[in-house]
Amino acid sequence: MNIKYPDGSSYDSNHNSLQNNSDQQKKKTIFGDRGMTLEEEINQSNDYYRIHDIAVIYKKPVPLQIVKVDYPKRSKAVVKEAYFRQPSTTDYNGIYQGKYVDFEAKETQNKISFPLKNFHSHQIEHLRSCLKQNGICFVIMRFSVLNEYYVLPASILIKYWDLQTSEGKKSIPYTVIKQNAIEIKPGFNPVLPYLAACDEMIQKLKESPHG
Amino acid sequence: MNIKYPDGSSYDSNHNSLQNNSDQQKKKTIFGDRGMTLEEEINQSNDYYRIHDIAVIYKKPVPLQIVKVDYPKRSKAVVKEAYFRQPSTTDYNGIYQGKYVDFEAKETQNKISFPLKNFHSHQIEHLRSCLKQNGICFVIMRFSVLNEYYVLPASILIKYWDLQTSEGKKSIPYTVIKQNAIEIKPGFNPVLPYLAACDEMIQKLKESPHG
Repeated sequence: MNIKYPDGSSYDSNHNSLQNNSDQQKKKTIFGDRGMTLEEEINQSNDYYRIHDIAVIYKKPVPLQIVKVDYPKRSKAVVKEAYFRQPSTTDYNGIYQGKYVDFEAKETQNKISFPLKNFHSHQIEHLRSCLKQNGICFVIMRFSVLNEYYVLPASILIKYWDLQTSEGKKSIPYTVIKQNAIEIKPGFNPVLPYLAACDEMIQKLKESPHG
Repeated sequence: MNIKYPDGSSYDSNHNSLQNNSDQQKKKTIFGDRGMTLEEEINQSNDYYRIHDIAVIYKKPVPLQIVKVDYPKRSKAVVKEAYFRQPSTTDYNGIYQGKYVDFEAKETQNKISFPLKNFHSHQIEHLRSCLKQNGICFVIMRFSVLNEYYVLPASILIKYWDLQTSEGKKSIPYTVIKQNAIEIKPGFNPVLPYLAACDEMIQKLKESPHG
């Protein structure tokens, strides 16, 4: 069974640091006690979920616009010129017990709020569309200074995103996240047990389908 | 709303022609009457489904191993060396009315059977895992000489894949596809109305969940 996709190799962190997003550059930070980036933690958790037939969730490859490819004789084709493109969707999607799961993962150094500049409008529109189709949509947020992880339902992110225009909000207050998100405590198997938070979200949807 | 992802630009067809797969090289063939490749037909159909809030389904970006990136001053980062990697999943996934949809799209010049060399073991294992999670999994097949399109449930593909080892089968006979797949007639809106075939598959699953 292939469980290493994407394999967490360096190109992703390279790519992340290229985006016009000062907050995202900090993704390369190696977390003190485990030596893993948030992306690596999620990839490892997805490997765990996949091996144990719990869920099939992958990070999507980074989209590139390929301009020039060389085909050297007797060796592999080499891309010689390519440019990073802005993804139109979130980074992660898959299936969990028959349900479609879609999420983005972001972290901040901020302690009192989560800046909305961490997100692109394409990602928000994608989450909005997936919610309409009854997907389980959320953001895994890490407050890196506090070393706290949250699963925030996409509906809250979208609500604050829309308030940017009407009320000029630039971030989601930490208190709002505390009230509306589900905290995840990092563990070992899996490293980041975020599907437990999905269970809570699925349960809430059953109780109040339009809440 | 962003509806152009991936945008069907040339890099995908470049990539496809690089795979060790003689059959797949023919993907670049421009179809006589519409001037579109199978991939373009599916991408356009996905655009249509997305715009009309029917489904949110995307083709995944081509996975690349990036080795060297240049950061020229005052211009965009340029990937200077990268290699194509074999995907670990199928090319397409998304959500349709709350259901997780996962598929691969392939075509053949063959008229009497669909060669299994069109698939990689990773794709088969991925489909197997998604089926276990109750996903709607299939292959969109095109017999290009016959100009016929079929949606074949992944269970049939997997059955024949496994028969390669036990019985030395190298392809799925056309007659088997005729019996087990759902034919799609190309149209205009969408170009390839493959979700109609999904409806049939979903209906059958309801009637006989373990068939």
